[in-house]
Amino acid sequence: MTKKWVFDFSEGDGKNKHLLGGKGANLCEMTQIGLNVPPGFVISTEACLDYLANADDDLPAGIMDEVRGHLQRVEDQTGKVFGGADNPLLVSVRSGSAMSMPGMMDTILNLGLNTETLRGLIKQSGDERFGFDAYRRFIQLFGKVALGVSDEAFDEEFEAVKQRAGVKTDVGLSARDLKEISDRFLDVVERETGHAFPEDPLQQLEIAIKAVFRSWSGRRAVDYRREFHITPEMANGTAVNVVTMVFGNLGDDSATGVGFTRYPDTGENRMYGEYLVNAQGEDVVAGIRTPKPIDALHEEMPELYRQLVELRDRLESHYREVQDFEFTIEKGTLYCLQTRNGKMNAVALVRTSVEMVREGLLTKPEALMRIPPDALEQLLFPQLDPTAKVKAIARGLPASPGAAVGRAVFDADRAEQLGKTGHRVILVREETKPEDIHGFFASKGILTSRGGKTSHAAVVARGMGKPCVAGAEGIRVDVAMREAFIGDTTISEGDLITIDGTSGDVFLGEVAMKEAEFSRELQTLLEWADEASTLKVMGNADTPEDAVKALEYGAMGIGLCRTERMFNASERLPIVVEMIVADTREDRQRALDKLLPIQRADFKGLFSTMAPRPVTIRLLDPPIHEFLPSENQLVDELDQLHHLKETLLGMNILADAVDFMYRTTSEHPSVTKLADPRLVDEAIDRKETMLRKVRALSEVNPMLGHRGVRLGLTFPEIYGMQIRAALEAAAECTREGLEVYPEIMVPQVCTAQELMRVRESVDSIRHAVETHYGVTLNFKFGTMIEVVRACMRADNLAEHADFFSFGTNDLTQAAFSFSREDAENKFLPMYNEKQVLQDNPFEVLDVKGVGRLMELAVGWGRGTRPNMKVGICGEHGGHPASIRFCHEIGLTYVSCSGPRVPIARLAAAQAAIATGTTATGDRAA
Amino acid sequence: MTKKWVFDFSEGDGKNKHLLGGKGANLCEMTQIGLNVPPGFVISTEACLDYLANADDDLPAGIMDEVRGHLQRVEDQTGKVFGGADNPLLVSVRSGSAMSMPGMMDTILNLGLNTETLRGLIKQSGDERFGFDAYRRFIQLFGKVALGVSDEAFDEEFEAVKQRAGVKTDVGLSARDLKEISDRFLDVVERETGHAFPEDPLQQLEIAIKAVFRSWSGRRAVDYRREFHITPEMANGTAVNVVTMVFGNLGDDSATGVGFTRYPDTGENRMYGEYLVNAQGEDVVAGIRTPKPIDALHEEMPELYRQLVELRDRLESHYREVQDFEFTIEKGTLYCLQTRNGKMNAVALVRTSVEMVREGLLTKPEALMRIPPDALEQLLFPQLDPTAKVKAIARGLPASPGAAVGRAVFDADRAEQLGKTGHRVILVREETKPEDIHGFFASKGILTSRGGKTSHAAVVARGMGKPCVAGAEGIRVDVAMREAFIGDTTISEGDLITIDGTSGDVFLGEVAMKEAEFSRELQTLLEWADEASTLKVMGNADTPEDAVKALEYGAMGIGLCRTERMFNASERLPIVVEMIVADTREDRQRALDKLLPIQRADFKGLFSTMAPRPVTIRLLDPPIHEFLPSENQLVDELDQLHHLKETLLGMNILADAVDFMYRTTSEHPSVTKLADPRLVDEAIDRKETMLRKVRALSEVNPMLGHRGVRLGLTFPEIYGMQIRAALEAAAECTREGLEVYPEIMVPQVCTAQELMRVRESVDSIRHAVETHYGVTLNFKFGTMIEVVRACMRADNLAEHADFFSFGTNDLTQAAFSFSREDAENKFLPMYNEKQVLQDNPFEVLDVKGVGRLMELAVGWGRGTRPNMKVGICGEHGGHPASIRFCHEIGLTYVSCSGPRVPIARLAAAQAAIATGTTATGDRAA
Repeated sequence: MTKKWVFDFSEGDGKNKHLLGGKGANLCEMTQIGLNVPPGFVISTEACLDYLANADDDLPAGIMDEVRGHLQRVEDQTGKVFGGADNPLLVSVRSGSAMSMPGMMDTILNLGLNTETLRGLIKQSGDERFGFDAYRRFIQLFGKVALGVSDEAFDEEFEAVKQRAGVKTDVGLSARDLKEISDRFLDVVERETGHAFPEDPLQQLEIAIKAVFRSWSGRRAVDYRREFHITPEMANGTAVNVVTMVFGNLGDDSATGVGFTRYPDTGENRMYGEYLVNAQGEDVVAGIRTPKPIDALHEEMPELYRQLVELRDRLESHYREVQDFEFTIEKGTLYCLQTRNGKMNAVALVRTSVEMVREGLLTKPEALMRIPPDALEQLLFPQLDPTAKVKAIARGLPASPGAAVGRAVFDADRAEQLGKTGHRVILVREETKPEDIHGFFASKGILTSRGGKTSHAAVVARGMGKPCVAGAEGIRVDVAMREAFIGDTTISEGDLITIDGTSGDVFLGEVAMKEAEFSRELQTLLEWADEASTLKVMGNADTPEDAVKALEYGAMGIGLCRTERMFNASERLPIVVEMIVADTREDRQRALDKLLPIQRADFKGLFSTMAPRPVTIRLLDPPIHEFLPSENQLVDELDQLHHLKETLLGMNILADAVDFMYRTTSEHPSVTKLADPRLVDEAIDRKETMLRKVRALSEVNPMLGHRGVRLGLTFPEIYGMQIRAALEAAAECTREGLEVYPEIMVPQVCTAQELMRVRESVDSIRHAVETHYGVTLNFKFGTMIEVVRACMRADNLAEHADFFSFGTNDLTQAAFSFSREDAENKFLPMYNEKQVLQDNPFEVLDVKGVGRLMELAVGWGRGTRPNMKVGICGEHGGHPASIRFCHEIGLTYVSCSGPRVPIARLAAAQAAIATGTTATGDRAA
Repeated sequence: MTKKWVFDFSEGDGKNKHLLGGKGANLCEMTQIGLNVPPGFVISTEACLDYLANADDDLPAGIMDEVRGHLQRVEDQTGKVFGGADNPLLVSVRSGSAMSMPGMMDTILNLGLNTETLRGLIKQSGDERFGFDAYRRFIQLFGKVALGVSDEAFDEEFEAVKQRAGVKTDVGLSARDLKEISDRFLDVVERETGHAFPEDPLQQLEIAIKAVFRSWSGRRAVDYRREFHITPEMANGTAVNVVTMVFGNLGDDSATGVGFTRYPDTGENRMYGEYLVNAQGEDVVAGIRTPKPIDALHEEMPELYRQLVELRDRLESHYREVQDFEFTIEKGTLYCLQTRNGKMNAVALVRTSVEMVREGLLTKPEALMRIPPDALEQLLFPQLDPTAKVKAIARGLPASPGAAVGRAVFDADRAEQLGKTGHRVILVREETKPEDIHGFFASKGILTSRGGKTSHAAVVARGMGKPCVAGAEGIRVDVAMREAFIGDTTISEGDLITIDGTSGDVFLGEVAMKEAEFSRELQTLLEWADEASTLKVMGNADTPEDAVKALEYGAMGIGLCRTERMFNASERLPIVVEMIVADTREDRQRALDKLLPIQRADFKGLFSTMAPRPVTIRLLDPPIHEFLPSENQLVDELDQLHHLKETLLGMNILADAVDFMYRTTSEHPSVTKLADPRLVDEAIDRKETMLRKVRALSEVNPMLGHRGVRLGLTFPEIYGMQIRAALEAAAECTREGLEVYPEIMVPQVCTAQELMRVRESVDSIRHAVETHYGVTLNFKFGTMIEVVRACMRADNLAEHADFFSFGTNDLTQAAFSFSREDAENKFLPMYNEKQVLQDNPFEVLDVKGVGRLMELAVGWGRGTRPNMKVGICGEHGGHPASIRFCHEIGLTYVSCSGPRVPIARLAAAQAAIATGTTATGDRAA
């Protein structure tokens, strides 16, 4: 049996991209669903591979016979004749493999032209200039692409003629000029190749086919495939598409245009597009003439407009997706040249998803699957207006998404003052610290010149849902001078700046912006998502305000409340510091007694906001030295105090001298001494005590240090206060008739013993609180799984924990032995660039390593406690691919920052749909 | 069937400690192997439990009948009568459970005495004083232990009589005094209990049995069992032992003594012991009379000496272990009262093991199993003479075992000077740094006041096998003054001090010492160990000198050569620093070119020393900032330089002034200017460059930072130099006819990509070296497994590695999220104390967590590459329990510091024997 190499568009399998290439399959599919595609055929990728495998330059036997047969069919369909002098059939020849791949051969247009057929074309179009223009274009393209003649040779001749004719642009050239160019081009080809330009259209076609095939193994294509890891399984060989040329420039009954089946910027269900009468496709693109909106065609060619609407309907009902299509009208006949899925912004994606379900075009799962979850960011944060043409003055890391405008301010106190008087403020700092937190509350956005995506500024901003650009190294901040410098630009306090936390760009002045749009359609879509998901989506929230936001974003509970964040508020920090520097347990308890009512009020706010949803409280996690000033800062302050003391001493000696001098005269004005220098001693003492404490608490590797439950067991009274605050808050809510589900979670656990010690404390406090308030608390006790050993001992830990929550930030650091702060500044960019690691594992969950640990832990944990509640509350909990993995290993929930909750809800639904495990049993088609 | 509660020594099962208690079973066993044990019987633990389960105070039915029957048997054997007036049978009553357990009842002696039997005892012994002394002791013990009368009541009466008699010690009391005391004691009992002292011996016995049983559930015993986690499976209930009293003080044909079947301090095969004629056992212990050496009995009582030798032989041939036994001779009859395994020092343990195999008493596996591997430390390091009575002036952490004496010196340069002039030196520092390394070479031992067992000082000292006491916080070092202070004591440079790295103690002056003894017996024993082991034992060695030592200790190769240690030598460090501060690749390459021949020479030394054994080279591991001075040091030095510059400036201005002044006079002496201050600028520049570099390289968490392969991929030329040095060294050795097996190992690997990148470099350098030298290298390429993710990806890594080597130091840090330096200073001691963690996981491998990771990695790795070579080179590789685990999970080898190699060899043999998987197929009996 001889192989079939060539397929007419009416017979090729539209699904077989591997054999026919993407473009070829698409042309077949369009033809077979009844669209008026210009007739043509595809030569298969198998023919390509066969040709390339041959040592000699011959096409596989029989191909050209098949081609001739197919040309005959096209001639029959079009009434034109390939090589015919009266009504010549011209074709385009183009490459097309299974994957779109630059570097392969350019399209050759107008193949089939020669001295004779050119005359036919001119006669038919009645336009000599058009004829020669087509001809010279064909000679150049064919010469370059199929025969390997350099562009320069053609350009030289072209310029010479233009110069001679005294014109500057191609448009100015007459038919006569173009004829001369064609002739010169023919000479170029003959000179460069040593052969006359082939006159025989069939020979032209054979040469073109071979050239397309050879381009598959050309240098650029091979490099491209290596660079993007395109394996033979993904695409092997290129097909050749031979399509009848149709012309939109054959008179006023011809036109060309492009269309969208719906509005790509709003999603509105109306055809969108533009066209030009008597024009070529490239004229629309080139912008020489201004195209008309598609609605105008309704007036100009009502019948063709009707056909176009019909085409649109057919496209949508077949592809069940918004289409971006190209059409040409040749002498009153509408052809569809190409169609593909339309690119849309998030607003349009969401609206079309919802409407296409209502129209019955899509099922809900299909509607959910067609939106990349991250695209929702556009709807959840303010964005810079994409049409604004502005140039960034600096670029940092995109540390928290969204854009913000405000007056630059260089310290937190000033930010608070300006914020209170109603100004929009951007806090600009070298880096931020816990004591800057009031500045965050007052600001629209944060800009730092140091630190990465995990810096204090970045983490806090993300938690608050405020835009942040971090580590914009070009910026130098001079707090004292109230100025910042970027290259030659100086920003003074109060100057308006704009930051884009989605891109990392920083702009001078106010840039136009689009507000977030949490539309009704988005809400509908996310409700459908929730119906499909099995994975619950919680929000991370540290304050009642965060919780209100998380709830608006659809959080089904709070999966992580970092209680230490509550410690950072400016009126609380001094009490926390008092607690830390306490030398005795009694002193510490005194400070904790002051913190208890504050934390209880916080928790009560959280619980009542979220009732009846669960709220997970994580006990104190970071090393306590994080709440103290840095060693360097204290040393500086001590220096200043000593200097002050010396100055005071000196001044007072001077005052004594003056006083003595005056005493020897009769007049005796009063000489006022300055403050007693010894008053400074007290301040020095305090600072020195603090410095000693800071030094005693300093650690070589704080990430692996004295924190979490290790701190909790060292100072049981700290956890005791937090547990009591949480349980008393729950008891008060319960007594007020609210249904609350508090959960207490222990961080940094590595052994069941730790958990048991804390549990003992919880049980005894619970008993006391229940007795005192006369209520029964419904609460859970669980553990973070963020230490590797906790994974290894998950079976054992599950005996003492009602739930697990993976802390994948720390778990990733420990699994890789990468300190995130160091890695992202030092070697991780190089690792990603050199493909040692595909992704940044702190952004994309490392499924193969960290994921394997998680999977083991889930299995072992549920071996002890079947159906155990297991979640994730690291940053990965808001990342779509990571959510997919969490779904696959059977987690109960993910928890992420409020603004990522909608993204996670959609991703959770997609995970269920893609794996055929939705709550509703729905499946994607 | 009625239960049997009571067992005669001749019938009880000597193996059933659970039923008879340890002591009871022992007495049965001794009796049944024909030793002359005083007749008696055991009442079982079951009886105890039955009694305690009863609500009322009755012994289980029938026990006392059984007891009476057994007493009858004893009477028959001894010819004495319980309660008899002529030849009364007296017994001791004591408790004994399956596990030795303080807190249970004291022994009651002389039970059976009353007014009547006392007369018989006096008549028989002919010693009235002896009789009343026995009586008053019995009344007090029985009164206290069985009847609950307080000691104070007895003591009061005792003191009253002593005072009346005008004597100070018990010995001064006459028979009459003792009689009075007995009478008063009887009154005390009657007064306190409300009942007369029981006269009926059988009643006495019943009361005593019940008291013993009750003591099992007494407060102290219950607390003890909880504290030491003694579960009912381990010991449940106590037995009661009733034994005929025998007296060594019934005249000159009586005696009492203790014996060792061999010398416990040397292991010599001769009976050792001492005895006293006409004395009680307690007289030997009390030291009132000086006992005679056992050999003297040969003269005094030749027949009994013969019997004693026979006893000794019987003990050894039955127990097949050195025995520590007690005997009494009552009127010419030898009784053996007790025997147990003898406690010996390491010298004796080793010698007896070897000799007992030669004598056919033990099999080799048994001989190997009876020595705790860690005991060998005594033979491998100098030890303080245990008889030396000295008091430590300070205590630190035992950071590297062994003792050393030398002159205190406070900096490395001075240590080197003194060392070169033949002085013994102890280097005393706050903490040590890489640049102190020459001081280590010159010193006998190292003492630091800061840092833990993982500090630089500790790690380097262990590697060199030199004693080290680290973190002796009581010591303050003043380098400038050349003094150190400990409380009120001042140590000046040159003062002799002694440190004990095995205990952590520090002494003033020279303490007597025992040198290490790597005896022929130990060598023999270790050869047997090697025959039994399947696990190979390698040494860690960083220099050729280390390798020579490791070889002496029996290392079968080098499992870890830390190449960076080679960088620290004082003449090399400047080149390393040059390499690090280089700003361009060219500058770096220039420095590396200087290092290449140095490293090659090191490697050649190692390879040729070890040939034909394998040597594993680990490529550079630590972060490079470890080789640079600290930030604080540089800031200080810069301050000094700036100060110097200002001083010079000032001085030169002064010189100018003086010069000017002189010029106005006729005389003109020459005024010499000091150096141009600008010369200092150059030094300042250099320091500032260095400071910038140090700051740029500083890391938040250096343990998880830019190190190992991450550094190797950032600066491929560094690894390139090391690989080339290793392969060229191997090629040179090969060309010289040596058989060498180099192995190259990559540290900190977390993904196969890293390994592949290094392997590419290795392959290309190998090709170049083989071509250049014209040899074929036989070498292996492998990876450390010290990052958790490497365990998770072991299947994948095994595709690119010939071998794995677990770095359990780092792996433990990562698995626990404990920074060792921080943990050991901050919370780990508390964790161990409160039993949150049983052991320090950096000393004892955490089998449940880290071990589980290792087991997974071994399984996955060998899934890809069956029989893959897998080892361990962390500190755990020298720890016996950890070695046992390594054997169980099928590792190929362990590698540890040289001096621990013998310990590891023994532990490896024990692991094989204990699990029945020896290389020879031998099994322990």
